[in-house]
Amino acid sequence: MPSLAEFIDGRRARVEFEAIKLDKPIALVDLPTPALVIDLDVFEKNLKRMQSFLSGHGLGLRCHTKMHKCPVIAHQQIAQGAIGVCTAKVSEAEIMQAAGVLDILITSPVSTPDKGERVVGLAGSNDSLKIVVDCIETATALNSTATKAGCTVGVFIDLDPGMGRTGIEPLQPALALGRHIRDACPALRFDGLQMYAGNCMHITEYEERKATYARLMEKGRQTREMFEADGISVPVFSGGGTGSYDMESELGILTEVQAGSYAFMDIEYRDIASRTGPQFDDFPPSLFVLVSAISKPQEELITVDAGFKCLASDKSAPEFREIEGVVYQWGGDEHGIIELNNPSRQIALGDKLEVITPHCDPTVNLHDFFFPYRNGVVEEIWPISARGCSQ
Amino acid sequence: MPSLAEFIDGRRARVEFEAIKLDKPIALVDLPTPALVIDLDVFEKNLKRMQSFLSGHGLGLRCHTKMHKCPVIAHQQIAQGAIGVCTAKVSEAEIMQAAGVLDILITSPVSTPDKGERVVGLAGSNDSLKIVVDCIETATALNSTATKAGCTVGVFIDLDPGMGRTGIEPLQPALALGRHIRDACPALRFDGLQMYAGNCMHITEYEERKATYARLMEKGRQTREMFEADGISVPVFSGGGTGSYDMESELGILTEVQAGSYAFMDIEYRDIASRTGPQFDDFPPSLFVLVSAISKPQEELITVDAGFKCLASDKSAPEFREIEGVVYQWGGDEHGIIELNNPSRQIALGDKLEVITPHCDPTVNLHDFFFPYRNGVVEEIWPISARGCSQ
Repeated sequence: MPSLAEFIDGRRARVEFEAIKLDKPIALVDLPTPALVIDLDVFEKNLKRMQSFLSGHGLGLRCHTKMHKCPVIAHQQIAQGAIGVCTAKVSEAEIMQAAGVLDILITSPVSTPDKGERVVGLAGSNDSLKIVVDCIETATALNSTATKAGCTVGVFIDLDPGMGRTGIEPLQPALALGRHIRDACPALRFDGLQMYAGNCMHITEYEERKATYARLMEKGRQTREMFEADGISVPVFSGGGTGSYDMESELGILTEVQAGSYAFMDIEYRDIASRTGPQFDDFPPSLFVLVSAISKPQEELITVDAGFKCLASDKSAPEFREIEGVVYQWGGDEHGIIELNNPSRQIALGDKLEVITPHCDPTVNLHDFFFPYRNGVVEEIWPISARGCSQ
Repeated sequence: MPSLAEFIDGRRARVEFEAIKLDKPIALVDLPTPALVIDLDVFEKNLKRMQSFLSGHGLGLRCHTKMHKCPVIAHQQIAQGAIGVCTAKVSEAEIMQAAGVLDILITSPVSTPDKGERVVGLAGSNDSLKIVVDCIETATALNSTATKAGCTVGVFIDLDPGMGRTGIEPLQPALALGRHIRDACPALRFDGLQMYAGNCMHITEYEERKATYARLMEKGRQTREMFEADGISVPVFSGGGTGSYDMESELGILTEVQAGSYAFMDIEYRDIASRTGPQFDDFPPSLFVLVSAISKPQEELITVDAGFKCLASDKSAPEFREIEGVVYQWGGDEHGIIELNNPSRQIALGDKLEVITPHCDPTVNLHDFFFPYRNGVVEEIWPISARGCSQ
């Protein structure tokens, strides 16, 4: 009979972090469906393209692991030059740190004693652990927890770009928090600023996205200047994402970019414009849910075995890869109903098909494993070790 | 290095089925959030009410475990009189059977060899395992797999109530399938009919719901009569759900009801009318996501630590339990942004609050554990053993 803390630690001790090699490769079409699959050729190009673009523009890549939740992928990103990762939540950081991914920024603030203690627990054995703070009250509480534990925690001040989600108001309120950390929080180490304008990332038109983003981020630049005029050095300014990656260098505010979706992509990102065209095809989709056709109740319909429980969406519906004339309609939690309008290939019962996910982050969070493949063959399984880690 | 089949078996062998007792109880408000919690007093009343209503009307209760995915709960439902369970998918049935829940009906058909083999694998050691079939092609394939394995599989013929999702067309096409099973599928045992009119369950007005449902189900009655006139006995007719539970006895078509949501309830079900009033309050909500207030970026807003990754929705937004003057707005995958309009209680940073889920089934599927509580205290943890089992 464990305590709750022992129970949580025990669960984490059972999590797998490493790729599992199969003793014999399996064909993609023999996977039990629904299965979350990665087209490795596309995926690896996406990783390389983002890294080389940002490196070429003097920017750091801090990969957001809230998207893939997979230490196998985080290690690949770091091996290619990423400076570290960010996680949305504390429990996600616990998984990454346990898997040996050390340079971590937790991008959401914490407000309760249990979470403060878990952050301090991580920082106690990892100098590279950082978390955002966004108000004097929670900064004071974290300082107090760190002081009791005799350790120092690196903090970023999170600036609200006007979303009203998290972050302190830029300029004076942010500066007041910066001074409070400097003057009254000896157990907190000020490591930089964060400003993530998530409300801009999916603005469809490129020039509008860029103009809106530049306008919102301007307060971040001014805040940094106020900090530095006050003698508070800002070594790092973190933010941005896949939707702004090629604007950051010109804007010149951020020093590192928190991109996540570029590795997998999804319909929501694909459907915004890029610098050069009406679709965002800088990074093609590499993530798919493999589904099977299981029922054909009517002539112009065929039903597949994947619904809301393996394809998350807050907006759009999934789409099929490389088939025209088919429309996926949600068929509830367990099914999708495919309308056949003169499809470019026949679909029979038992056929397995790849669908593009509407939104990669919450879709990944529904699955336990990735099945990466090349030339139609799966050789290993990658555990989604931080799946469900929303705490 | 395992084969894929060994890997899948190995994962299942690690799944926990039983309640985990905590060595010391923990207060609800001390749980790390987000946490999926069950108010046991409400939950137990819901279980009793549905069982006694259906028993009192001579109907069987076949609980749908796609909703809770938890053998601890399935065993409670059976102990109270449920005749068995249904599962949406094969992998869910594997978990239930491994946990000792034997009377199982799998309510979705399978079409691929790997799934047919898994069904036969279950049936080989469990006479009470049943699965639906909905076309001659897949029935023939399943018969062939069962014949090779030297075992018999119980099947229900799934009738399409006009949803176009799964099921064969009622009347003549269904009868042809019935004859095919009788005459050409010696390894399949015909156990009954299934007809699930999921498209009716959430019709808001009670009388309209009842009339539409009765009209759709009428073809099920006629199909049963055709089967019996043809000498094919129909021992069981399965279908219905929480939205039709109090209509079935009067309709007189089904012999057992596949109810799931009644145990937990959600906003989508609450917002339809009941027999007696504009809200469906026969079964009050017993399931909540406990969240923490983590940020207060603006005066009239407060942000909580739960978004799409722990509160699934295809329609409505979550609501707070027993607080007026607060509106939950989705804040993306990780957050909710609460608008404060003269709230009935103050909400401070660090406060923990219960929210009612928009849709219980896919919300449960996001979490690994239930935290059941009584009098504000959690004494044990119930594993959501079939979480993610969409295969």
